[in-house]
Amino acid sequence: VPSDNALSPSHEQRYRSLVPNDFQLLRDRLRRFVDARDWGESHSPRNLALALTGEVGELTTELQWVTDDEVDNHLKDPRAKARLADEVADILIYLIRFADVCDIDLLSETYAKIDRNEVRYPHKSPGDDASPQ
Amino acid sequence: VPSDNALSPSHEQRYRSLVPNDFQLLRDRLRRFVDARDWGESHSPRNLALALTGEVGELTTELQWVTDDEVDNHLKDPRAKARLADEVADILIYLIRFADVCDIDLLSETYAKIDRNEVRYPHKSPGDDASPQ
Amino acid sequence: VPSDNALSPSHEQRYRSLVPNDFQLLRDRLRRFVDARDWGESHSPRNLALALTGEVGELTTELQWVTDDEVDNHLKDPRAKARLADEVADILIYLIRFADVCDIDLLSETYAKIDRNEVRYPHKSPGDDASPQ
Amino acid sequence: VPSDNALSPSHEQRYRSLVPNDFQLLRDRLRRFVDARDWGESHSPRNLALALTGEVGELTTELQWVTDDEVDNHLKDPRAKARLADEVADILIYLIRFADVCDIDLLSETYAKIDRNEVRYPHKSPGDDASPQ
Repeated sequence: VPSDNALSPSHEQRYRSLVPNDFQLLRDRLRRFVDARDWGESHSPRNLALALTGEVGELTTELQWVTDDEVDNHLKDPRAKARLADEVADILIYLIRFADVCDIDLLSETYAKIDRNEVRYPHKSPGDDASPQ
Repeated sequence: VPSDNALSPSHEQRYRSLVPNDFQLLRDRLRRFVDARDWGESHSPRNLALALTGEVGELTTELQWVTDDEVDNHLKDPRAKARLADEVADILIYLIRFADVCDIDLLSETYAKIDRNEVRYPHKSPGDDASPQ
Repeated sequence: VPSDNALSPSHEQRYRSLVPNDFQLLRDRLRRFVDARDWGESHSPRNLALALTGEVGELTTELQWVTDDEVDNHLKDPRAKARLADEVADILIYLIRFADVCDIDLLSETYAKIDRNEVRYPHKSPGDDASPQ
Repeated sequence: VPSDNALSPSHEQRYRSLVPNDFQLLRDRLRRFVDARDWGESHSPRNLALALTGEVGELTTELQWVTDDEVDNHLKDPRAKARLADEVADILIYLIRFADVCDIDLLSETYAKIDRNEVRYPHKSPGDDASPQ
């Protein structure tokens, strides 16, 4: 274990290979939550897809009467922000459950998708538009 | 750095405090993706909420004509599963972006929500219904 | 006005041309409802799209833990059915409002879409698969 | 049959009682469409709820990068408006199908809901805030 806050890239890589990642930890926590309540049978892919839709609907409801111009101020209201935080948590919970019961590795699939998006939506590198010498 | 696959709980805790968690890594990767394309202005809370809805709609579309009984077989089709994996990745990407622009800590909010759910939906511990000796 | 329950097709067509259709009646009723409350400014296309999503989420929530096999029995529960009826009404209300503020003729667009679907998804006429004599 | 464009309220009421309303006409047209293709079994309540979600997702996708300020201009683009019209039609089609398979009278439920909303959200009548003499 390092003695200060500095962790070399190779050390970090080594550590990451030895511990579960945060998605695995959440997935396992939710598995235990569901198993303790015998809810496993209810958590079918279609049930979870419908539940996920419901939670997204609760999120959009929070923003339905807030115009683009008002949204920054709206987020300064701690109760409004807490409700939004609650909804994004609910969405993530059902998304992790959905991926789990479908045997989809959510984290690696997301990195793979970002990789594909990087190719699909190319962008100029900082040097591309540099003035000629 | 440990020399084998065993990592003690205190070592793991120390390690986690020194490196960004997987949600921070994804958030930062997506920030760079967005900034490189000058898409920051488009990623307002309401725009992202509408985009999130669109991606959830793509997920439900994948399952709309698959009955509960057929879904296991459906998931054995690698192309069907790849499409679902693609959709859950899209949903997570927009969810992380949404939380980021709203300054919501997605990971800690999700653990806090699971904690609240543990209280809201109590369950018998394995021993609770044990027959008395 | 006909003296009995029989109405010839030409009579019916003539009548329909003289009275507003049911979508126009609903649209006008909702316009008056909104105007009486000074809600017109809130009913922008994006606000209504977010509100529509919220109502669809409430509909899916009603069915999220009901399996395909249980849904017929579920609908026999008058309270469950009343909740579903309430949600489909909410969805239609926001859909009519959305179409109205976007100046879309919901009824004629729907017939036009069904016409296109008839072409897009051809079907065998009853006689097509008749056994040869 | 009236000889001009004037139709008295009692005539109109009598006429409406003799002909199917526009929701019944659409419902019947869609029943024939579905039956001709043997799609009836696919149109279960949950399948249609998932399909409805998919269509709403297509609607929100159309508006996800259009800010509140830009939406009026966006709607002036005939292709953008045609896509929106297509989506609202798809939503109505699945909503009518959903109500039909659940044996819900969409039109009367919607009027009943508006009636309840009138009570739930009272408003000042034009004379209520009149200055005292």
